[in-house]
Amino acid sequence: MFDLPSDFRIEKDLLGEKNLPKESYYGINSLRAFENFNISNKKVNLNLIYAVVIVKKAAALAHKKLKELKDEKADAIISACDDILSGKFDDEFITNSLQGGAGTSTNMNVNEVIANRAIELLNGSKGDYSIIHPIEDVNMSQSTNDVYPTALRIAAIKLLRPLSDALSKLQESFQIKENDFSDILMLGRTELMDALPMMVGQGFGAYAKAFARDRWRIYKVEERLREINIGGNAIGTGINASYDYIFTVTDILQDLTGLGLARSDYPMDVTQNMDVFVEVSGLLKSCAVNLIKISNDIRLLNSGPVGGIGEFIVEEVQAGSSIMPGKVNPVICEMTAQTSMKVMANDTAISLASSFGQLQLNAFSPLIAESLLESLEILTNAVNVFREKCIDSIKINEEKCLENLEASTALVTALVHYIGYDKASIIAKKALKEKKSIRELLLLEKILTKEEIDKILNPYEITKPGIPGL
Amino acid sequence: MFDLPSDFRIEKDLLGEKNLPKESYYGINSLRAFENFNISNKKVNLNLIYAVVIVKKAAALAHKKLKELKDEKADAIISACDDILSGKFDDEFITNSLQGGAGTSTNMNVNEVIANRAIELLNGSKGDYSIIHPIEDVNMSQSTNDVYPTALRIAAIKLLRPLSDALSKLQESFQIKENDFSDILMLGRTELMDALPMMVGQGFGAYAKAFARDRWRIYKVEERLREINIGGNAIGTGINASYDYIFTVTDILQDLTGLGLARSDYPMDVTQNMDVFVEVSGLLKSCAVNLIKISNDIRLLNSGPVGGIGEFIVEEVQAGSSIMPGKVNPVICEMTAQTSMKVMANDTAISLASSFGQLQLNAFSPLIAESLLESLEILTNAVNVFREKCIDSIKINEEKCLENLEASTALVTALVHYIGYDKASIIAKKALKEKKSIRELLLLEKILTKEEIDKILNPYEITKPGIPGL
Amino acid sequence: MFDLPSDFRIEKDLLGEKNLPKESYYGINSLRAFENFNISNKKVNLNLIYAVVIVKKAAALAHKKLKELKDEKADAIISACDDILSGKFDDEFITNSLQGGAGTSTNMNVNEVIANRAIELLNGSKGDYSIIHPIEDVNMSQSTNDVYPTALRIAAIKLLRPLSDALSKLQESFQIKENDFSDILMLGRTELMDALPMMVGQGFGAYAKAFARDRWRIYKVEERLREINIGGNAIGTGINASYDYIFTVTDILQDLTGLGLARSDYPMDVTQNMDVFVEVSGLLKSCAVNLIKISNDIRLLNSGPVGGIGEFIVEEVQAGSSIMPGKVNPVICEMTAQTSMKVMANDTAISLASSFGQLQLNAFSPLIAESLLESLEILTNAVNVFREKCIDSIKINEEKCLENLEASTALVTALVHYIGYDKASIIAKKALKEKKSIRELLLLEKILTKEEIDKILNPYEITKPGIPGL
Amino acid sequence: MFDLPSDFRIEKDLLGEKNLPKESYYGINSLRAFENFNISNKKVNLNLIYAVVIVKKAAALAHKKLKELKDEKADAIISACDDILSGKFDDEFITNSLQGGAGTSTNMNVNEVIANRAIELLNGSKGDYSIIHPIEDVNMSQSTNDVYPTALRIAAIKLLRPLSDALSKLQESFQIKENDFSDILMLGRTELMDALPMMVGQGFGAYAKAFARDRWRIYKVEERLREINIGGNAIGTGINASYDYIFTVTDILQDLTGLGLARSDYPMDVTQNMDVFVEVSGLLKSCAVNLIKISNDIRLLNSGPVGGIGEFIVEEVQAGSSIMPGKVNPVICEMTAQTSMKVMANDTAISLASSFGQLQLNAFSPLIAESLLESLEILTNAVNVFREKCIDSIKINEEKCLENLEASTALVTALVHYIGYDKASIIAKKALKEKKSIRELLLLEKILTKEEIDKILNPYEITKPGIPGL
Repeated sequence: MFDLPSDFRIEKDLLGEKNLPKESYYGINSLRAFENFNISNKKVNLNLIYAVVIVKKAAALAHKKLKELKDEKADAIISACDDILSGKFDDEFITNSLQGGAGTSTNMNVNEVIANRAIELLNGSKGDYSIIHPIEDVNMSQSTNDVYPTALRIAAIKLLRPLSDALSKLQESFQIKENDFSDILMLGRTELMDALPMMVGQGFGAYAKAFARDRWRIYKVEERLREINIGGNAIGTGINASYDYIFTVTDILQDLTGLGLARSDYPMDVTQNMDVFVEVSGLLKSCAVNLIKISNDIRLLNSGPVGGIGEFIVEEVQAGSSIMPGKVNPVICEMTAQTSMKVMANDTAISLASSFGQLQLNAFSPLIAESLLESLEILTNAVNVFREKCIDSIKINEEKCLENLEASTALVTALVHYIGYDKASIIAKKALKEKKSIRELLLLEKILTKEEIDKILNPYEITKPGIPGL
Repeated sequence: MFDLPSDFRIEKDLLGEKNLPKESYYGINSLRAFENFNISNKKVNLNLIYAVVIVKKAAALAHKKLKELKDEKADAIISACDDILSGKFDDEFITNSLQGGAGTSTNMNVNEVIANRAIELLNGSKGDYSIIHPIEDVNMSQSTNDVYPTALRIAAIKLLRPLSDALSKLQESFQIKENDFSDILMLGRTELMDALPMMVGQGFGAYAKAFARDRWRIYKVEERLREINIGGNAIGTGINASYDYIFTVTDILQDLTGLGLARSDYPMDVTQNMDVFVEVSGLLKSCAVNLIKISNDIRLLNSGPVGGIGEFIVEEVQAGSSIMPGKVNPVICEMTAQTSMKVMANDTAISLASSFGQLQLNAFSPLIAESLLESLEILTNAVNVFREKCIDSIKINEEKCLENLEASTALVTALVHYIGYDKASIIAKKALKEKKSIRELLLLEKILTKEEIDKILNPYEITKPGIPGL
Repeated sequence: MFDLPSDFRIEKDLLGEKNLPKESYYGINSLRAFENFNISNKKVNLNLIYAVVIVKKAAALAHKKLKELKDEKADAIISACDDILSGKFDDEFITNSLQGGAGTSTNMNVNEVIANRAIELLNGSKGDYSIIHPIEDVNMSQSTNDVYPTALRIAAIKLLRPLSDALSKLQESFQIKENDFSDILMLGRTELMDALPMMVGQGFGAYAKAFARDRWRIYKVEERLREINIGGNAIGTGINASYDYIFTVTDILQDLTGLGLARSDYPMDVTQNMDVFVEVSGLLKSCAVNLIKISNDIRLLNSGPVGGIGEFIVEEVQAGSSIMPGKVNPVICEMTAQTSMKVMANDTAISLASSFGQLQLNAFSPLIAESLLESLEILTNAVNVFREKCIDSIKINEEKCLENLEASTALVTALVHYIGYDKASIIAKKALKEKKSIRELLLLEKILTKEEIDKILNPYEITKPGIPGL
Repeated sequence: MFDLPSDFRIEKDLLGEKNLPKESYYGINSLRAFENFNISNKKVNLNLIYAVVIVKKAAALAHKKLKELKDEKADAIISACDDILSGKFDDEFITNSLQGGAGTSTNMNVNEVIANRAIELLNGSKGDYSIIHPIEDVNMSQSTNDVYPTALRIAAIKLLRPLSDALSKLQESFQIKENDFSDILMLGRTELMDALPMMVGQGFGAYAKAFARDRWRIYKVEERLREINIGGNAIGTGINASYDYIFTVTDILQDLTGLGLARSDYPMDVTQNMDVFVEVSGLLKSCAVNLIKISNDIRLLNSGPVGGIGEFIVEEVQAGSSIMPGKVNPVICEMTAQTSMKVMANDTAISLASSFGQLQLNAFSPLIAESLLESLEILTNAVNVFREKCIDSIKINEEKCLENLEASTALVTALVHYIGYDKASIIAKKALKEKKSIRELLLLEKILTKEEIDKILNPYEITKPGIPGL
């Protein structure tokens, strides 16, 4: 991997020495973690890394304010944090997303990169931790066990908000379609069988309601994530962190993030119990279930164009087949459902990892963190793409809608008040057998006049509560 | 199954005739469902049956009030409902919990039992539906598709409340223990490795916090279940149900149940989207995760009595082995975790079934209903038993707690301020190697005086935020 | 619960005394378990109880043969086992399916019922364990920890076989339909969009293949369950069980069950590792996935009858709606999919419980046992009902099949060889736009003659490999 | 993104024109897919890409042999495939792992990169598909729907083998430890409570057995993946692919891969039914369950070093805490369990996606593919790291083992034969109360002589079947 001795620097820890690339900002702990957890090709989520960096910055600001850290050191650390947050050092975060150890490696990696960047800013040589020490200075008064859960909450809240916005816009798009299609009649179906007439717009309105609930849940659950345990240290008792620091660092974190973070009155709880992430993931799963159901509905109504239901027409976004000329598939709906299934799978990971917590810590919090942040990201993206490339441009094949409705016996129910249940049943069966519409048959058999039929089967009446035609 | 022709009555439906036991209250639709869905030995949950009956009663009261049903008929139906709610006809509900058909069989079964009981009250012969008709009278203005989701919400709310109470009591029990054990020192552990000192009471307090969140979630989510779609009819459009009826029946349901039920302003949504049940189940899963984690913690701290940690002593509730004399196991903790796993499995069922909904209905709502109601019941029972037979009677082996703490190097962290990190590390290693306690070694090596040690290692200080001894 | 002192007998254990109903066959350990685990209304699966009884009988026979138990005692125990297996004492098994304690309560319950029945046969008074002792005699050389896993394997194998048979018959039914419908053309669909022509029979053949794999898996996996740990005792070391007994009891169990059971060469493994049940459940899940997919396909092709695809016609087995006259739903398909979802949920329970095993035992084996046996039972029933009430009687709407196929552009692909890809694309678009069939258009535009068309679009060619018409 | 017009080339498809980077090997279909599915930052798994490329190469070789493609074209395609397989074009595969469309975008991406590389080899300009056409030449006789499932099987088999090897080595390592520790006594525990004596080696042997089963399952299931549907084309009927091609391409694929691939006799089945992947994933989950259970056992036995069980000593691989000096955690065990949980989560994704298949295709196969290949990769890595960094270097604290065993009452069971069950119970209780070992007490109370004790408590006897000391 490395060619010349001059490329190296040497660092030591309790297990011995390691060679590091001379210019690497990460240090020996990061390297050991890299080697120990070479499991997947997925590094730690950068949203999490950045949130840890923000916590480090807040701690340095607090220590500076409280004179617990010299100004020069604190300032160098703060500048290093800002540099990292600008995205320039992303490649220095080398630890694997499936790392063991409750996030210690992630915390160590951040400590080391900050320290070495700060050392550089102070014109020192990387690895010369007498200038800035990753543990004693950067990690001062902290433990992975309060930094990591705090950072995960910050990262999660930051990703919850765009999801909430995306859902809000999706709801709005559905409501626009509810309005646009408010006077197009279609056949309602239960258990896939022809049921009763409805307006196309009503269907979109029902979807809008589902996403309104999703948005509300996502919006509200943020408050549960606001309680942070920074200052609780290794097991939540706060040993070796000063009272002043604990309050100050929380205030500064509020300022830095602009989020309504609050110090937990029981940090030991926040350090060890992961139910809040299970709760958030459960709500993402509710949203996923709606997305699967609704995107599948749209696919079904879009099926055909001839040999399916064919009532909806979704936008064509790419060729659908490498063999069948002209075939286009509802790939955006499929992507939406599929992403939602991934969110459901991540929920399995989060629930499992959370239930395996033990005593004062959950060793599997990295799996919780990665799964939750991934779910938030991909769900937001899927919701936005679903809206932009499917819902906003969806069209209705009105002719097909009417044809399916009229050929079905769904209108029969509207006649029960006028011709009775039994006669309605006979009409229904006859219509199906003779492949005539209810309307046709009523006229043909002179059961009702055209005027009566028009009044009773008035679309503005038949899909609302009450006896149609009265 | 039946011996003599005189034991039978005959009923007809669109598929033909069936013999029924003469005295059965259920009718032909129930019998067909019984035969079609003979899948498991579990019938429909009685809590759901009763909730359907309450909806039927409310509908009859509404129709009576609005003169849509004659007083005599309505009164007979209402009395029949009351009789069923008293528990006398439980055996008449014969349909399987795994029935297909979105709950139609359950609704039909209830309609038939009510009708036949009402007929009996009016001195008619069972099966003579000219007196009271299961569909036209009992099911008037209703569809399975508005009755079933409404009833499921009522049944779920009724089971949520005892769960909320149970969690509240569990939280309280943990808080009592937090107080009782507030001055017993123990060793805190992270990733199962010796970490830092804490109070036994603090651990219980952290558990209490987790259950406080669970209680709050369970309590709050009730409001999401209050929105009902009764009056929406088959697909939520409310066809053939009068405006007056829709409002009246909701008001009456409020009165009958004492629950703050509200008419959905979009019944088509409530009829087809099941995300609310996924949400509730997700919260039950959060609670399950806490119960697994915490009951496993208690088992771990109770392990031994000699070859384990042995710091907790759970009540003995039954013999633990059919071969090893005197062995007692923490079976209540095990039952608690195991029941919680079952709740997690039910969450899989609920999420799956919900995601398979199509268009204006979810055909798999029976699986949602049975799984959700079962989870609520067993979780409530498990929480109560866990509290009564484990938490309330738990004891601490104080001696063992102190022994483990003092033999460990956990106290070393408290000394960092006084003797420095490096010297603390040396002391720690020496202590482990020579199997001496930190206290012992400090005295022996004359590093600190007994007075200094007592001050620095003061339990009331060491487990609180700040530098111990200052 | 009980009225008079004379109704009681008193039993003692290490925790003290309990009153028992005088005539109960269960004893104090059963009663304590009943009281401790009053969690659900589901008792232990009787298939498991009977399998435990068979193990007890085998042990008694072995001890008798080896003179480790007096003939009189052994014979009474053996007779008692036979009586229980006849079904007469089912109500005496009172412990809950969600019991903690790794099955000890189930084992104790069986020991006590056998003992008291044996005592009765020897004209003693129930509870007089000096005659036959539940532990010392009935449980001789055994532990719950070898009895329970052995019995679970026996119960599971006994349920695997009917499932294998049911799948075999289902496969056969699909193959019969493959043949019956081998010359009916239909439209193949990918991603719900019109794709290519196929034979209806081919679709059924593809389903038959899937179930053939399921049957094979279920059939083969039995061999993994045959390895039993009886004789391993509490942790698998076999302490206090004689060598002769260990071999003899396995041989006798083989004879009694007729199953190819084999003594594990490493009982400690079988006692603690549950992966075999995860494996079996995973295979049940594979089968469940096929059932969901295929029953949903059938529902989709049956959808309509007018406003859906309407190509399949499933048997009507019950009325489908309490409001819409004449509506019939594909409830058997729904039940099949729903039961399969339940099997997937049970897989969650089994995997979770298995992963929480610790050291020499898995405390959560009761959840594994109940979930696995339930999955086996309901899957077998669902497969049988699906076959009998849906597949065997399924009909095809040939006219609709042809109509959908011909109105679609699916035939276009067959023409590529003759008129080129580009011309085929133009024909396809024109056909969709003008709502003409490909056949119609080819004639109308004089692109091909009727003879050519008939040859190229020959159904016996077009759905087989190769260039159609060559 | 791009600066100058000269950087571009233009490509067209049925939806219109797109600008592409002039030097990109991917084309318009890849670019559209990239834009449509910008959901996560994870591209398609390269193992899958390479397997698709191998299929393309096989097709070209078959067409060349059968003269269906000119030698010059075929040779260019074949060379292009080889170039891609050398890893030089990895960055050209730009489609997202969460793509909709059943893998069409992946197939299109590969077609385009091969075509443009082949064009380049033939000295053409990228995008000039008159030289080599991505669909007509590279994709000749193929469809995504036969290429993708075939490639997934090839990729999966290639990853199954290293997993099988890894498990084989893990089993061997456990067997070496079984032997190494065959004469170290320790305390066996059931339900975390002190149970019976065993050899440390026996525990390792039991683990070896579990992994032996895992290896066998993984090894055997390969045969289920060998059946491929290449030649089946879009829905499995094989339209437009010649008979000769179908047989030839399968033979060539066998040669190219060295895997025992076989042409499915029912390609329509393989195209649409995904149960085989559910089966494989279920077996990976069985392995995951073993890894969780066993790595957790090791963590538990390693717990402490003082305040836990402390009988095992796992290798120190990195510092464990950013705050507690000298703390080291069992991070390799944690990583192993955590990776296994991820495998269980992937199983959820695979099962869900598979159950949502419809008719002649499963639109969600990309989720199946990505999840399965990821599980295979990370499980293999985790198993190897677990072996290398934990099992191979594990040490036993023999002193602690003996101490725990002797302080416990586990030895009492061995005395039952000599002093009776009751006296044994009394001894046990006394020992616990007075904190004396059984051995000590027996001597002290002169119940047995030292010689007798040594004989009865002989470790080589007590952990084997039979009555100890006889």
